[in-house]
Amino acid sequence: MAFFISYIYTQEVKANQAIGVFDSGIGGLTVASSIQRKMPHERFVYFGDTAHLPYGDKSPAAIRAWSKSIADFLLGKKVKLIVIACNTASSHAYASLKNLLKGKVEVIDVINPTAEYVAKKYTKGRIGVIGTKGTIQSRIYVKRIEKLNKKLKVTSNATPLLAPMIEEGYFNNNISKTIIKSYLDKKTFQNIQAIILGCTHYPLIKREIDELYQGRIEVIDSAEKTAERVKEYLEANSLLAGANQKKNQFFVSDYTESFDKSTKIFFKRSASLKKMNLWR
Amino acid sequence: MAFFISYIYTQEVKANQAIGVFDSGIGGLTVASSIQRKMPHERFVYFGDTAHLPYGDKSPAAIRAWSKSIADFLLGKKVKLIVIACNTASSHAYASLKNLLKGKVEVIDVINPTAEYVAKKYTKGRIGVIGTKGTIQSRIYVKRIEKLNKKLKVTSNATPLLAPMIEEGYFNNNISKTIIKSYLDKKTFQNIQAIILGCTHYPLIKREIDELYQGRIEVIDSAEKTAERVKEYLEANSLLAGANQKKNQFFVSDYTESFDKSTKIFFKRSASLKKMNLWR
Repeated sequence: MAFFISYIYTQEVKANQAIGVFDSGIGGLTVASSIQRKMPHERFVYFGDTAHLPYGDKSPAAIRAWSKSIADFLLGKKVKLIVIACNTASSHAYASLKNLLKGKVEVIDVINPTAEYVAKKYTKGRIGVIGTKGTIQSRIYVKRIEKLNKKLKVTSNATPLLAPMIEEGYFNNNISKTIIKSYLDKKTFQNIQAIILGCTHYPLIKREIDELYQGRIEVIDSAEKTAERVKEYLEANSLLAGANQKKNQFFVSDYTESFDKSTKIFFKRSASLKKMNLWR
Repeated sequence: MAFFISYIYTQEVKANQAIGVFDSGIGGLTVASSIQRKMPHERFVYFGDTAHLPYGDKSPAAIRAWSKSIADFLLGKKVKLIVIACNTASSHAYASLKNLLKGKVEVIDVINPTAEYVAKKYTKGRIGVIGTKGTIQSRIYVKRIEKLNKKLKVTSNATPLLAPMIEEGYFNNNISKTIIKSYLDKKTFQNIQAIILGCTHYPLIKREIDELYQGRIEVIDSAEKTAERVKEYLEANSLLAGANQKKNQFFVSDYTESFDKSTKIFFKRSASLKKMNLWR
């Protein structure tokens, strides 16, 4: 199927419209959850591309194409803002979506808010980043942070087993401890001032990583930094929603009970998934 | 996109045609590798649905739809036989493909050959099965084996982290040992006579599972049993290929270098992947 951004925004966005959020699956619900905690009146139209999940191993071209179809769907749902709640999709599709949606709706990714926070807070030294193969191979965190602050050095490492591990409910146990330790127990990850959790699944293992470093360094949650950016944007543009909002809507490109159960892990509250296949 | 089995087989299949093999990704190359070892003259048209990989978490309906599109593609390549080299796709799509391709081309899955081997070899007692969530939730091994031999009891358990673990090259190390042990160190997996590796990735950890059981039980590789069935079928129908065959062809629905590198792990020889997107 060819796809176009077919919905033309003729009106200005309004405060009572929903925030569009998308991810390769349900991990991006950690971002929606952070936004909801900071701004309880906001509501979401969420899209999880569970048919293609995980994005971490897929090609940049495929991820760009899928992201465009999803953005088109969200525009059709009249969202006031699109949040790319996935580090891999942010790495590969942010620039093209931003360009495509110019003048229609703002796009916020998970990488820029995090990179800007780090570049401002840390004056010099070394920062660590972990994420999927796609995110790390793109070197996007390295490029963004080192461009914003030339005195910082960024060390990044792909940790591809962490997302499936978390999805299977393996955290705070012996297995997760072994896997996390094997990824981080490297010399390059010892002399860092902070580590960025460059995948929206990782907030669920933040405590374990905190414990591994015994609180010596800051563990930075990209979902949190993104939620802060969303709040700044909505406030600055008088787009914060008032009370009495309609319900959140959650769509997935492939529905299974297992995905449905996992929403609670990531969203911290119940969310009823609805199937919406964009590719047939 | 709607799909149809659009290629109509008007001629009988011939011995010098290729064997069509498909999987959600590159794990099914273990099946192709087993077939190649037993029948070095055969050649393959392989399709790995890397855009939707892994199938283990996806819905039965989606897997049936994708499998039909792939079978259509393989028919277009004039294969003499289709092998479903994926336990999850075999669980959900074998019956519908078999029915759809009746009179056109034979379909061999990975589950029936394995179930029939077990039901014949073991007279009574308990058999273990491990596989993806999709395969295990379908209870297909339990139903098939217990129907074929009412004196056998089948214990099955989903081991969803094993496939991503193997894909990331984590085997024969501390992490794989910890994960495998945590899955199998259960009372139900102690009193078994044999264990079926119900995922085409698992041949790569057969040795580790052998070691865990210290050779006390048979560890059954479904890829091997499928290759034996393919040989029987080709012999019985005078379809074994002669020498001087053309080259194998390997197609994937999404191409990355990482998939390309992994082919060697699974196929034991080099294989050049070509991108073929069936869904856009």
